[in-house]
Amino acid sequence: MSGTLITGISELVTCDPSLGEGPLGIIRDAEILIQDGKIAAIGPVTTLGSAGFSDDFSRQEVGGRAVIPGFVDSHTHLLFAGDRAAEFTARLAGEPYTAGGIHTTVAATRAASDAELRAQAARLVTEAQAQGTTTLEIKTGYGLDVDSEARLARLAREVTPEVTFLGAHVIPAAYAGDPDAYVRLVCGPMLAACAPHCRWIDVFSEEGAFNVEQAREILRRGQEAGLGLRMHAAQLGPSAAVQLAVELGAASVDHCTFLTDADVAALADSDTVATLLPGAEFSTRQPYPNARRLLDAGVTVALATDCNPGTSYTTSMPFCLALAVRELGFTPAEALLAATVGGARALRRSDIGKLSPGKQADYAILDAPSWEYLFYRPGVPLVKGKTP
Amino acid sequence: MSGTLITGISELVTCDPSLGEGPLGIIRDAEILIQDGKIAAIGPVTTLGSAGFSDDFSRQEVGGRAVIPGFVDSHTHLLFAGDRAAEFTARLAGEPYTAGGIHTTVAATRAASDAELRAQAARLVTEAQAQGTTTLEIKTGYGLDVDSEARLARLAREVTPEVTFLGAHVIPAAYAGDPDAYVRLVCGPMLAACAPHCRWIDVFSEEGAFNVEQAREILRRGQEAGLGLRMHAAQLGPSAAVQLAVELGAASVDHCTFLTDADVAALADSDTVATLLPGAEFSTRQPYPNARRLLDAGVTVALATDCNPGTSYTTSMPFCLALAVRELGFTPAEALLAATVGGARALRRSDIGKLSPGKQADYAILDAPSWEYLFYRPGVPLVKGKTP
Repeated sequence: MSGTLITGISELVTCDPSLGEGPLGIIRDAEILIQDGKIAAIGPVTTLGSAGFSDDFSRQEVGGRAVIPGFVDSHTHLLFAGDRAAEFTARLAGEPYTAGGIHTTVAATRAASDAELRAQAARLVTEAQAQGTTTLEIKTGYGLDVDSEARLARLAREVTPEVTFLGAHVIPAAYAGDPDAYVRLVCGPMLAACAPHCRWIDVFSEEGAFNVEQAREILRRGQEAGLGLRMHAAQLGPSAAVQLAVELGAASVDHCTFLTDADVAALADSDTVATLLPGAEFSTRQPYPNARRLLDAGVTVALATDCNPGTSYTTSMPFCLALAVRELGFTPAEALLAATVGGARALRRSDIGKLSPGKQADYAILDAPSWEYLFYRPGVPLVKGKTP
Repeated sequence: MSGTLITGISELVTCDPSLGEGPLGIIRDAEILIQDGKIAAIGPVTTLGSAGFSDDFSRQEVGGRAVIPGFVDSHTHLLFAGDRAAEFTARLAGEPYTAGGIHTTVAATRAASDAELRAQAARLVTEAQAQGTTTLEIKTGYGLDVDSEARLARLAREVTPEVTFLGAHVIPAAYAGDPDAYVRLVCGPMLAACAPHCRWIDVFSEEGAFNVEQAREILRRGQEAGLGLRMHAAQLGPSAAVQLAVELGAASVDHCTFLTDADVAALADSDTVATLLPGAEFSTRQPYPNARRLLDAGVTVALATDCNPGTSYTTSMPFCLALAVRELGFTPAEALLAATVGGARALRRSDIGKLSPGKQADYAILDAPSWEYLFYRPGVPLVKGKTP
């Protein structure tokens, strides 16, 4: 029996309270035994007893650093071509965000080759991994015709199993006069072409995008095709789409900036996760969502980057966590849980998000003695990846 | 004649409007010729004519990336031992910042060996450089007795010529009953022991630290000893120390969160730079200073990290720049100027902060086609240092 023993961990955050101290389940002076990409055993040096392992185990000494579960970034749009630096600059000069810029990225993405799209996505994935992300969701939505959406779904599937069909991202200009015709396209041939590559379906339900009845039809058809449900809602204003997502049993409703008391109550009473994306509010200068209200009501909350070239061109989960504590009302421990266990719940995954026996060996070593440094040292890239 | 030719620069930010477009003096498709650590020539490929250089020049191709002047971080306290993660966590739980935590760092710093202090500072300097900082100021102030302050000044001088004597950081507990006796110590033997290693003297003038009359005496004595003047003021509330700094011809007054209209007018009418430290407000949850008010009044503004283990444990100038635009009212171009030319003015240095002939070859290559990515991609470490 072979494997790798990670030793010299000053502070191991398991995110499983049954395994250690406090809500983060912290074990001090810890070791992790990894076999076949999974965690075989975990515990303090004194209990795990590394000295007893045979020479078949390779040892990796992390030198008194903290180890946390890898981040689960459950909301990205990182498969695209082109940039929108010009739109970004205009917005800083006072222009409001209206989602219209998506068309710019659609044009660039359609024009790009598979190789160009693969290379751009690979750059961003590498960047995300370098800051501790070990699971990424990727949405389509910069194709907006059958072939282009299917191509994006296929390319995304090369990167991650967590692919989301977002044909219903915006209504293409060609369908501006007949949005329902576009909804029929999304529900019919586009869904049929994309579903084989996807695990999820998502709708951007907002003023200027898809209304609640269109969202209901699209999600219902996605569900019939075997896809799990997600929803973009309440980013720019209150929306009945939040409660629709709960009613349909969506895994997550994302953004959640403008929620009514009834929305919060519905989320708290459901298995639907509220995924907050503070990178978007940072870049668009919109108000931040109030996480405290959700957490206090017992809603399961996730944090993700929303990585996209228009409104949140960041791959950094640590940056989003720092904002979550400064601006959204999270405690540091709540933010770290939202970025790991919360993200896993938003993807309905039980094999990631925690470091405990049987889970995937998805962890990040911090160049710091304590997990709190993620918050104590904002802007400093502390993640060392899987090697110290 | 030998040197290095940096070629393939998609966008060169000179921060000298006479050399290129707009307030940042941007040159597209640019080259820089470096000789003896200084910029010998700079310009577009078509004018500089790299093809004409002899083989004595080594060439460095940066592959279509943007190049900016290195950041001038004109306010740090990065020479210390210990950490204050516990104080940080308590503050997140609601405890206000009162500067009392400085004593914790003083105790740890006094107890550390020279080698430990050198190693810690080297780690932080390396971190800062990796994010584009090429000039750092370092303050003493975690010694607070003659020998300890002199040791810190000597060790800081090994790292940078921009060393600031900050014996007047807080009043040590032993002098709580007779603060003026501590002021006499600072102005007498402590100043005498530190001045040979220092270029600057600074006072933390704030409720709970040094009052304005004490600050006046300390700065006046520093000036007599040949040191330039700096001031910490108006971080926690309005203070007459701002106008005192202007009156005495200080190079910079730092923090400037709570300014009166008269303070702004006095700064605008002077050569004193207002140095803003948004990393401190990020971590202490204090209100951010209003940079717009200063910029619109014509005050020269600098941005710096305030790197210290209590209130701003970041070395990242890009992080501070992103906050400056999101929260303080800077445009991206104003923020970049404040972090380069502004920092140089705050240190009264004419050899850094811009990329033009005769200046030091202090630059940073960005892994991006445009300088705007520093703001467009928050949280992403884009600086590649001096090699692409």
